[in-house]
Amino acid sequence: MEYQHIFDFAREAETILILNDGEGSIDKTFFYLTEASSGIFEGSALIVEPKTLKIVTGKLEEESARNTGHEVITFNTMSEFHDIIREQLKNVETVGLNYSSLTLKMYMDLLKMVPEKRFVDVSGSISESRKFKAPEELKKIKEAARIAGAAFENVLEKIHEGMTEKELSAEIGYQMMREGAIEPSFSTIVAFGANSSMPHYSPGDKKLRKGEFVLMDFGALYDRYCSDMTRTVVFGKATEEQKEMYTTVMEAQSRSMNAIRENANGKDVDKVARDIINASKYKGRFIHSLGHGLGMDVHDHPALSPSYDFPLKATMVVTVEPGVYVPKVGGVRIEDDVIVTKDGFQQITKPQNGLVEL
Amino acid sequence: MEYQHIFDFAREAETILILNDGEGSIDKTFFYLTEASSGIFEGSALIVEPKTLKIVTGKLEEESARNTGHEVITFNTMSEFHDIIREQLKNVETVGLNYSSLTLKMYMDLLKMVPEKRFVDVSGSISESRKFKAPEELKKIKEAARIAGAAFENVLEKIHEGMTEKELSAEIGYQMMREGAIEPSFSTIVAFGANSSMPHYSPGDKKLRKGEFVLMDFGALYDRYCSDMTRTVVFGKATEEQKEMYTTVMEAQSRSMNAIRENANGKDVDKVARDIINASKYKGRFIHSLGHGLGMDVHDHPALSPSYDFPLKATMVVTVEPGVYVPKVGGVRIEDDVIVTKDGFQQITKPQNGLVEL
Repeated sequence: MEYQHIFDFAREAETILILNDGEGSIDKTFFYLTEASSGIFEGSALIVEPKTLKIVTGKLEEESARNTGHEVITFNTMSEFHDIIREQLKNVETVGLNYSSLTLKMYMDLLKMVPEKRFVDVSGSISESRKFKAPEELKKIKEAARIAGAAFENVLEKIHEGMTEKELSAEIGYQMMREGAIEPSFSTIVAFGANSSMPHYSPGDKKLRKGEFVLMDFGALYDRYCSDMTRTVVFGKATEEQKEMYTTVMEAQSRSMNAIRENANGKDVDKVARDIINASKYKGRFIHSLGHGLGMDVHDHPALSPSYDFPLKATMVVTVEPGVYVPKVGGVRIEDDVIVTKDGFQQITKPQNGLVEL
Repeated sequence: MEYQHIFDFAREAETILILNDGEGSIDKTFFYLTEASSGIFEGSALIVEPKTLKIVTGKLEEESARNTGHEVITFNTMSEFHDIIREQLKNVETVGLNYSSLTLKMYMDLLKMVPEKRFVDVSGSISESRKFKAPEELKKIKEAARIAGAAFENVLEKIHEGMTEKELSAEIGYQMMREGAIEPSFSTIVAFGANSSMPHYSPGDKKLRKGEFVLMDFGALYDRYCSDMTRTVVFGKATEEQKEMYTTVMEAQSRSMNAIRENANGKDVDKVARDIINASKYKGRFIHSLGHGLGMDVHDHPALSPSYDFPLKATMVVTVEPGVYVPKVGGVRIEDDVIVTKDGFQQITKPQNGLVEL
């Protein structure tokens, strides 16, 4: 990784300090910059300068840290950790921090540790850098996308009457791991029937019955990179209503995906899908953004959204996922992952050919 | 949940504001307080007063929010969200925030939204409240522990020569989900042979060979609560060295676990295990804390650690996980989950009877 890129939009920062807190507050930028393949690195730090990168960590992660080839400084106690940070920053006036990930508590600790420093927010620079994917990153995302697609095909034959949403979710997770995922990249959504009207539904004990929608939103984590796809199928023969919902969403997806290319604006791509749905009987039923960036985070920058005025660039990776949701009835969402290219896009999840009736 | 408890240690806060950012910055306190069984709630907020709780969320999560029975206020745009926060806090002078979870960026936004408020850190009060588990929470953690134990037994017969660490990790995940887990509660660690000397190793493509240690650290997520257990077995017949490592760790675990009871100090419990290991040939090879709290987070408060001076109390849940790690050779860790009781402890993961040789 050419980590000096994160300085491009934050030239006033001489040094960037990345601080991980506990499991809920790990900055993925830590892995983006170090490329550490192993380790969790809670309570660890990175001292990043344009030409050097040092990992500050405890004994627990020392071996994983050394395997990266970067300089490693270890500590045993919090007071040793504070001393190291003070020492490393002693000649630095302006320190860049990732405000999007740093907790207020760690910031307060830092103010006590090095009260004389000037801090600047480099979160914009970091997300700017992370939006553009290097070839080796694209390779990992493509593999994550392949895994999700292969798992979906394997899963179709396992769907049977009376199985619960939780069981199907477990099956999807297993199939992804069998295909090489380290784990699901986020909590799998499986929603049967009317439950599919909740875009962020968590799978429950509902049993599958004939004629119901089966909405599956899932993704694989592969070498720290994510895929994210959604398929909606009908268990049994689809009704006219189900076909109409599906066809509307499919049309919105394919037309909006075809609007993707370098310099297309995210909000214009979103509008293509939104206009199609709003011109149908499902007006107002598309209640989220069209898509989001994909990378080490499932919801990475940039977004395809009415409120996101931003030109897409080649090597960015985005999801395209229109949906319609009718409370108490059900919903359809179709989601695929694409890489933006100079002339258009490359779809990396295996496309679906029409509504699947099981 | 009796959410007024979170005010017990933060009486100066009239209202507590819980703010979720994106997927990497979701405050589990959101689910602790609302008991929402469904939904992700990115970019959502809670307005908590001693007797009322309001969920502020977008259309995406509206149905999940309403299912909790709490008051729900929805917004469409960020500017509407800001208006709602301002309106809800208009008669409040002192607002409590969870500094341990809130990102610096959201705090900066908040300073612009409601510049006239006084903010206080209620993270201590929240973690204090979350340490003590209600009966329904203990039920969920016990089920998560049962799932992990059952998965382990199923997994033993799947271990075979030549399988990779990643494959075994996938198998463990699948078995947990088959037993009812929604997903793994953290990234499963599977380490073969010398890789087991890295406590936070991430599974790779190494193939299992006869005579190697198989270290498995895994847990189940069940209804938003976590379990966490580690088993180390030998694939084949154990050498004398492997037996000695195992016996030392087992002894450290059982002796330290037996020191757990209400009012025992976490650092004294840690010392029991540490002294046993330091009196053996593995002196200095136990390079992490003895255990940590368990709840909605895998690494919840309180800790069993040399640096954590804190009396345990009944209904707290902790892991007991001594280990020894010899770089280039291998490591052994044994981890179980226990509930602290008035007179001692209740082990909720199924105990292991001696070293398993496969």
